[in-house]
Amino acid sequence: MVTLQDVRDAAKRIEGVAHHTPVLRSRTLDALVGAQVYLKAENLQRIGAFKFRGAYNAIRKLGPEQLARGIAAYSSGNHAQAVALSARELGTHAVIVMPEDTPRSKLDAVAGYGAEILTYDRYTGNREQIGDRLAAERGLTLIPPYEHPDVIAGQGTAALELLEEAGHLDAILTPVGGGGLIAGSAIAAKGVQPGIRVVGVEPEAGNDTFLSLAAGERVTIPVPRTIADGQAAPTPGELTFSINKELVDEIVLVSDEEIRDALRFAVDRLKIVLEPSGASGLAALLSGRLNPPPARIGVILSGGNVGAARLAELLV
Amino acid sequence: MVTLQDVRDAAKRIEGVAHHTPVLRSRTLDALVGAQVYLKAENLQRIGAFKFRGAYNAIRKLGPEQLARGIAAYSSGNHAQAVALSARELGTHAVIVMPEDTPRSKLDAVAGYGAEILTYDRYTGNREQIGDRLAAERGLTLIPPYEHPDVIAGQGTAALELLEEAGHLDAILTPVGGGGLIAGSAIAAKGVQPGIRVVGVEPEAGNDTFLSLAAGERVTIPVPRTIADGQAAPTPGELTFSINKELVDEIVLVSDEEIRDALRFAVDRLKIVLEPSGASGLAALLSGRLNPPPARIGVILSGGNVGAARLAELLV
Repeated sequence: MVTLQDVRDAAKRIEGVAHHTPVLRSRTLDALVGAQVYLKAENLQRIGAFKFRGAYNAIRKLGPEQLARGIAAYSSGNHAQAVALSARELGTHAVIVMPEDTPRSKLDAVAGYGAEILTYDRYTGNREQIGDRLAAERGLTLIPPYEHPDVIAGQGTAALELLEEAGHLDAILTPVGGGGLIAGSAIAAKGVQPGIRVVGVEPEAGNDTFLSLAAGERVTIPVPRTIADGQAAPTPGELTFSINKELVDEIVLVSDEEIRDALRFAVDRLKIVLEPSGASGLAALLSGRLNPPPARIGVILSGGNVGAARLAELLV
Repeated sequence: MVTLQDVRDAAKRIEGVAHHTPVLRSRTLDALVGAQVYLKAENLQRIGAFKFRGAYNAIRKLGPEQLARGIAAYSSGNHAQAVALSARELGTHAVIVMPEDTPRSKLDAVAGYGAEILTYDRYTGNREQIGDRLAAERGLTLIPPYEHPDVIAGQGTAALELLEEAGHLDAILTPVGGGGLIAGSAIAAKGVQPGIRVVGVEPEAGNDTFLSLAAGERVTIPVPRTIADGQAAPTPGELTFSINKELVDEIVLVSDEEIRDALRFAVDRLKIVLEPSGASGLAALLSGRLNPPPARIGVILSGGNVGAARLAELLV
């Protein structure tokens, strides 16, 4: 359904608009892990996370009538900013459905990109229904955060760039939330290097994809309590799971404390800011969850939208 | 005394050993400043700061007898780590003279690179005298933090890389401490693009180079109290000042509060960790100290060695 060619096409579509983010190396990290580690720094991507790749790719593919009518999305996180910025870049209007208790800084960021915000009560409202109704009533095109082939293809471009720069890798690690990043990454990575091992990382409390792969079908867990808010999906996406059950080799789990340690390592040794979800791949490596580690490992550091005040809390 | 060719030779010497650090772009920053800003991320350099470039270049140029006898340096900061790591990379022994109240993390970092540490009381001891005596007694070669042509040439390689990647720039901003980074940067930048404006940034409390340039001779101020500990030199170096009085166009001053704001901006928007000195160029731009700003500006973000606990303090 989504192919390597789709990812390559997405890479052309986002060229010059998305950042070609750097691949960072740390000999300290290599020595600690006992492997060569290539860190794809998507925290340095526009809007601070890989999500811009997928949203821009999907919106860029729309026809002129759809762009004229506008875009809708629901998200409390990075997808909201990704759609808002992509819409502005492409000269269309975006309406983002966000929980009314979303932190002020995130609402401001979305509004700052010129999007219209509709808030709802997350305890009584259903964001999918609100988004669907809004899209139907106003003729908007809904861009979902991961259940969309063009979004998945766009997310795969980060892995494509990583493999182009690092050369042969034995494994690639990505965080797993709804499953869009790892699905796109797996399509890109196994398309380019069929023997590569694709490893997903979930927080222990948010192990829905881990359980789903073990069960062979989508499992729903209670809404996870974890500092990795970008990975708090209670169930895998239908489309993303259909891809991931074919292409993902393994899911490893990390604790919130291991994620915090990885955040501190990122600050102390890598000099970069990661959000908790963005650090989970690093956490898996530093805590020895891949044992023995493959010789050459790529890791997608998926985002850095944590905010100075929250980062200060997490570091102490 | 130090030429563009020296910087180019240094660039070859450090190739494959020092990181070719990324040049970061932020459209948010561009919009705030009203210019195109190219950020050379030396916080992502080995040991977390540009200092590795100069130390490695200087030690790499030593003869086999000098390398066999070993290296000495005095520093409480990034130069200590730079010399320790360079010595290890080049198979020689380093002895670093450090104040006895140096934070544990910095002592550990230097020791971790295999260097021998000698501590002294910073209130009663004189580090230059201790370093000189040590070097004489044990036949070590002293690598000073900035008063050395090979150190200055090495520091200039960051600006050279920045100009290669960014193309034409109207101005380049670097922090000024002892003056080695800006001297090397000015030699490289004016060598490649003679019309470029070279702007130094000092903390308001550490304005020794500002005052010295105004006076036309080296001025000594009381030891500055500033959060920008890498820029707390009370007087410019003799060699560095002889270069900087010819090549530096302007020094702008920033307050500690402006530096903190820049640190927060780096975390919130750039997703990178800077130490206070490393953020002073960014602080100058964000606080409008260049008014009107030139159209295309390069900034050297000189380092990120702040530590998670201290960063948390600075962010709140």
